[in-house]
Amino acid sequence: MIKEGDIIKIILIDDPSKQYIKKVKKGVIFEDHKRNKLTFEDIINKHYGAIINNFIILKPTTQEFILYYLKRKTQIIYPKDSAYLALKLGINPNSKVLEVSAGSGAMSIILLKYLYPTGLLISIDKNLDFLLNTKKNLVDFCILENINYLKNIFFLNFDVFFKSIDNLFKIKFSSCILDIPELNDIVDKVFNLLDNSGTIGIVLPTANQVIEAIQKLKSSNFCDIEVEEILLRKYKTNYQRFRPFDIMTAHTAYIITAKKFTS
Amino acid sequence: MIKEGDIIKIILIDDPSKQYIKKVKKGVIFEDHKRNKLTFEDIINKHYGAIINNFIILKPTTQEFILYYLKRKTQIIYPKDSAYLALKLGINPNSKVLEVSAGSGAMSIILLKYLYPTGLLISIDKNLDFLLNTKKNLVDFCILENINYLKNIFFLNFDVFFKSIDNLFKIKFSSCILDIPELNDIVDKVFNLLDNSGTIGIVLPTANQVIEAIQKLKSSNFCDIEVEEILLRKYKTNYQRFRPFDIMTAHTAYIITAKKFTS
Amino acid sequence: MIKEGDIIKIILIDDPSKQYIKKVKKGVIFEDHKRNKLTFEDIINKHYGAIINNFIILKPTTQEFILYYLKRKTQIIYPKDSAYLALKLGINPNSKVLEVSAGSGAMSIILLKYLYPTGLLISIDKNLDFLLNTKKNLVDFCILENINYLKNIFFLNFDVFFKSIDNLFKIKFSSCILDIPELNDIVDKVFNLLDNSGTIGIVLPTANQVIEAIQKLKSSNFCDIEVEEILLRKYKTNYQRFRPFDIMTAHTAYIITAKKFTS
Amino acid sequence: MIKEGDIIKIILIDDPSKQYIKKVKKGVIFEDHKRNKLTFEDIINKHYGAIINNFIILKPTTQEFILYYLKRKTQIIYPKDSAYLALKLGINPNSKVLEVSAGSGAMSIILLKYLYPTGLLISIDKNLDFLLNTKKNLVDFCILENINYLKNIFFLNFDVFFKSIDNLFKIKFSSCILDIPELNDIVDKVFNLLDNSGTIGIVLPTANQVIEAIQKLKSSNFCDIEVEEILLRKYKTNYQRFRPFDIMTAHTAYIITAKKFTS
Repeated sequence: MIKEGDIIKIILIDDPSKQYIKKVKKGVIFEDHKRNKLTFEDIINKHYGAIINNFIILKPTTQEFILYYLKRKTQIIYPKDSAYLALKLGINPNSKVLEVSAGSGAMSIILLKYLYPTGLLISIDKNLDFLLNTKKNLVDFCILENINYLKNIFFLNFDVFFKSIDNLFKIKFSSCILDIPELNDIVDKVFNLLDNSGTIGIVLPTANQVIEAIQKLKSSNFCDIEVEEILLRKYKTNYQRFRPFDIMTAHTAYIITAKKFTS
Repeated sequence: MIKEGDIIKIILIDDPSKQYIKKVKKGVIFEDHKRNKLTFEDIINKHYGAIINNFIILKPTTQEFILYYLKRKTQIIYPKDSAYLALKLGINPNSKVLEVSAGSGAMSIILLKYLYPTGLLISIDKNLDFLLNTKKNLVDFCILENINYLKNIFFLNFDVFFKSIDNLFKIKFSSCILDIPELNDIVDKVFNLLDNSGTIGIVLPTANQVIEAIQKLKSSNFCDIEVEEILLRKYKTNYQRFRPFDIMTAHTAYIITAKKFTS
Repeated sequence: MIKEGDIIKIILIDDPSKQYIKKVKKGVIFEDHKRNKLTFEDIINKHYGAIINNFIILKPTTQEFILYYLKRKTQIIYPKDSAYLALKLGINPNSKVLEVSAGSGAMSIILLKYLYPTGLLISIDKNLDFLLNTKKNLVDFCILENINYLKNIFFLNFDVFFKSIDNLFKIKFSSCILDIPELNDIVDKVFNLLDNSGTIGIVLPTANQVIEAIQKLKSSNFCDIEVEEILLRKYKTNYQRFRPFDIMTAHTAYIITAKKFTS
Repeated sequence: MIKEGDIIKIILIDDPSKQYIKKVKKGVIFEDHKRNKLTFEDIINKHYGAIINNFIILKPTTQEFILYYLKRKTQIIYPKDSAYLALKLGINPNSKVLEVSAGSGAMSIILLKYLYPTGLLISIDKNLDFLLNTKKNLVDFCILENINYLKNIFFLNFDVFFKSIDNLFKIKFSSCILDIPELNDIVDKVFNLLDNSGTIGIVLPTANQVIEAIQKLKSSNFCDIEVEEILLRKYKTNYQRFRPFDIMTAHTAYIITAKKFTS
């Protein structure tokens, strides 16, 4: 049953390409691009999947939440990349993960899904606004999946380039994810924070940054360095004219992973 | 500390492209392609990430376990595809998922990671051997991540084309994944097994099958039909000569997702 | 020296992403998107490559002519596809080529470049308007490259589905290119028009059409059947931030080639 | 009719994936991988496309000649790349083209097809062996297409890094193609050799080289700089199971093009 506060996906029967993800609030009237109206009060207590006034009301998926609902204050890591990266880092409910930076929480959501219910995520961002936004996005995500992922995440607000992270933590991390524009000496520092055989993941948009990152990983004691990119190609669903869409996203980020070893 | 029974990754310092994933057993001596030897007894009680006799001993990641350790009796769904598919289906610890068929358990592993600790996976296969192999793979995977994922999965051994699944389950499923060569009337049947707004995922290697699947999804009451493929491009990690590898996997499967609605 | 009637490319020094391909006509004043003006009379007798009023005046290339100057009455075959297709068909100055249909002449231009000066291109279209437009495009292309490619092409205006092509030609063709939405019995007919070991090229946008085309090629006596697609990925040219563009063309057409054999 | 000295393609009726490109010589007996025999004397005076002893005898295409017959002394530029590059440089029968270096002649063949019969190609290589091999390949290619492309090419044997090319030529070139591992000051020198609005094409395998090349092109007076790569994806031709091949070539080269302007 749809309740007040639920996050719903609305699609138009006549034009399924138009999609909206919204939070149900009493008193609010939704309007599509053709000014067709849907009073949210009318859908409360209806079941998901129902048709109301030429709209289909659906439950959004994780991927839809991240792509179309998450409030963005930054460029996000896309689900195609983050889900794969989490597997390459071996995140599981026993993992302790450090994330620099939180961004808008798109990566945090995926990490928390792999960490739940006993893992730990420490999410650092120098920008307090970004942390607050990430927190808000996570609260909504917890509503969507009706799971309290928040108990597994701690937020830290500081700049890793100005405040030393060397002696900050009493634990070692099993994985660390870097999503920051400048690596500087952070790769070396992360090496010290990682457990033996711990994994590092770095997400970078440009080849120049990747070249620099590989160099730094090699000069620290990282092995098993891999660089990959993931291309997602979507197809039109006219079964009499099956073919790819005309355009696609050509680039989001290079994904780098490596493991710590100790001589 | 590495214990007997642990699953480890061995890489060669001199030639990191050579990688082996093995289970540690006393009395066993590992030999690489150049006949260098490693007595497993020597690595017990060493820490992960250590160098022993020109070998680095690492903890395998989820992705490495699936790609290089899983015993395959069938073609598997690749991590790049399965991790993304789980996000598109919205799998979470409240989900109830039906998987037809179990294959070798590559998809089951991913589903269990998203379902843990309170979700449910029912995995059907007509081939008992495949189920037993999947079970064995999952037992090893539980060892790797030290998590008891097995409590969330139930195996059923029958052929969905000969035995009716119509009245088999007293619950409705939030998601169903089909990885079978012939769809026949199974799409219609899955529709009835799904909860309102429930999601279906279909993994198919050929365009002909996708064309047929789209047609069936449209003739049942499925909406939000999407067809995608994921291409993974790997890069060489020589930072002075950064470039993609010469060859890549060009195709694994088309990934189809859709949602149930009810008029 | 730039003369009246020349086809030129204009780029803006301040914003090189803005590009225009124009024919130089006295009395015409060109205006860019910011209403900067360029009187064409001022550039006559200037040399190509010169800067005039913050505009650089360049000679367009074949690819630019096809993509940005050609008047389109139809979907065109893109240079990335047509140049490769011509090589796969083995077009050379001894070839006799049949093209159905002419479309807007984008493929004809490439064929003529490979056929010049002694080959033959017969270009059929049921739509007289399209033929006239193709002719006009070719006239402009001859101006651009200062070569009389027109002597190598003959236009025929009829519908291959209504008028029989069986006994139309006294010659045999070394290659035939089909760019038509419905193949019907045309593959069989082309077989008879082709020389021994002659090549056929078919350009089709959907997988359903390709599936049908392969079936027809196999049921006729065609061998060496190949299906390919070409993806063009463009990179940003900021050398400090080298990376692919965010979006790309994901699909133009599947390219099918085959050869006639005789038992 | 097949004559002695002709270059032919042999495919096996029973296994069309096995393909051979050979020169017909009396007295030679061809043997396939299963030791089936074909006496070349038997096929002289047969027509192309004929079946002889379970072999189909075909005329190779330009693409097949380059990929499967050309004697390689170096890494070649692939037809998918070279055909497109020639269009981006605007090569035509009025062009004067400088090619550094000749390599094995794979690019030269494409250039000559666009230049014939009145254009000029000057092909430089520091390695005399490579030039002799290119010449030999071109002689064979002239036999294949029965066109005398050789009259349009001049070979020069020297090292552009040791011998100055500044005052070597009395003509200006309309295009220059660089296929050399180190650019050094050659981009600047080429600028001086080019006609106004002349085009430069650079083919490079690594991102590091591309980053350096863009920088050099910008510091010389080149505009319209574009970097592209072409991915060729091949499909299986089983029309009941239409799908891409499992693996593909993931990378050959980045293609850079630019135009000279003069302030």
